[in-house]
Amino acid sequence: MSNKQIIGFDADDTLWENEVFFHQAQLKFIELHPHIKDPEEVIFQIEKKNIEFYGYGIKGFILSLLETSVRSYNNQSDFQNIAKIIKIGKDMLAQPIQLLPDVKNTLHHLSEHHTLIMITKGDLLDQQRKVKESGLLKYFSLIEIVSEKDEQTYLEILEKNNISPKDFLMVGNSLKSDVLPVRKIGGTGVYIPHKLTWKHEEVDSTFDLERVVELKTISALKVWLKSQI
Amino acid sequence: MSNKQIIGFDADDTLWENEVFFHQAQLKFIELHPHIKDPEEVIFQIEKKNIEFYGYGIKGFILSLLETSVRSYNNQSDFQNIAKIIKIGKDMLAQPIQLLPDVKNTLHHLSEHHTLIMITKGDLLDQQRKVKESGLLKYFSLIEIVSEKDEQTYLEILEKNNISPKDFLMVGNSLKSDVLPVRKIGGTGVYIPHKLTWKHEEVDSTFDLERVVELKTISALKVWLKSQI
Repeated sequence: MSNKQIIGFDADDTLWENEVFFHQAQLKFIELHPHIKDPEEVIFQIEKKNIEFYGYGIKGFILSLLETSVRSYNNQSDFQNIAKIIKIGKDMLAQPIQLLPDVKNTLHHLSEHHTLIMITKGDLLDQQRKVKESGLLKYFSLIEIVSEKDEQTYLEILEKNNISPKDFLMVGNSLKSDVLPVRKIGGTGVYIPHKLTWKHEEVDSTFDLERVVELKTISALKVWLKSQI
Repeated sequence: MSNKQIIGFDADDTLWENEVFFHQAQLKFIELHPHIKDPEEVIFQIEKKNIEFYGYGIKGFILSLLETSVRSYNNQSDFQNIAKIIKIGKDMLAQPIQLLPDVKNTLHHLSEHHTLIMITKGDLLDQQRKVKESGLLKYFSLIEIVSEKDEQTYLEILEKNNISPKDFLMVGNSLKSDVLPVRKIGGTGVYIPHKLTWKHEEVDSTFDLERVVELKTISALKVWLKSQI
């Protein structure tokens, strides 16, 4: 890999919509289970506990919804909900990709001056499908689909590809997965918030946000990068 | 990567037990659903149809079992089965690794003379857990967890790592995933059958088995490799 600056991109909710589909699926689940009190919190607690088994992604999410449904069993008609939840999952897995605004132009421009890599977590097959469907593959020198985005993961990817952390910039919508760990290993994290972010990706409010580079949109990256020269 | 011979290993049912746990889980499922006729075939047809959505691995398997349970709904007590199937899945995901005989010795010996890589398919997090728990990581220069093992996948891995197909040997228990595609791209496939092989991995009986290198156990690899010099 060349020694010019390497830019890593998160994919879900940085390059394309993702959380909105989880949100819509959850709304459908809640409609099917009007008897569950504080359903968002109930689902979140089950999901959180299940991450060690299932990791991130749609399949684990659906298994957690099924568990929530069974645990809050109310009456016989609930059995029909199981089939409906499985169907919600398959619809999510077949959901066409929706690129976020200006992603294609920005990647096209940046790929002429920088080496771009994609670092994303989730189900292997589903993420591969999205990469393929997105039409963005050509802009990336490397696609890494990982099970967790922590310091160790970033260090391993950088080492494997002979990238020095000081030459590495990571762009994403999660402070927890994209910004914090990269800053800790000596790289730069650029935070581009998305209107929907999963609760699990939220960070402690005591975190020093003043030191974070925050951009409103991906198209602001070009200007910001020029200002850094 | 060096220019000496590169040996690729499949992992599930080549290095460690895997299919046996799916088999045991399926038996538990069948016990819970005595009213399903020809249950193996019913499950297999649903699994096969779901691979395009779920890919390989335990999470997709459990989602297919849940779908089978719902489709064959018999009476209200079946609802309890949903929770039991979810539990079967979590037990599978927490199942301690069981190495096959002579795997450790053989890999230790071979890694002194060859570059070893692991190429396995399945759920990302689950396969990473197994690699870690197996204690075999130190013998491998590269671990590739992929969503499908076909000619395209092998070509991409070899190209990315500057390995010529003629220097590449792939060892595994699946003719369909480990032997055939590697032979088609000009490499060598070594077939080490396991007593349990998933129906999906079976190949057409018209396939010319006479041209396949078949060894009874992994420990026979050392002797066979010497005979090839």
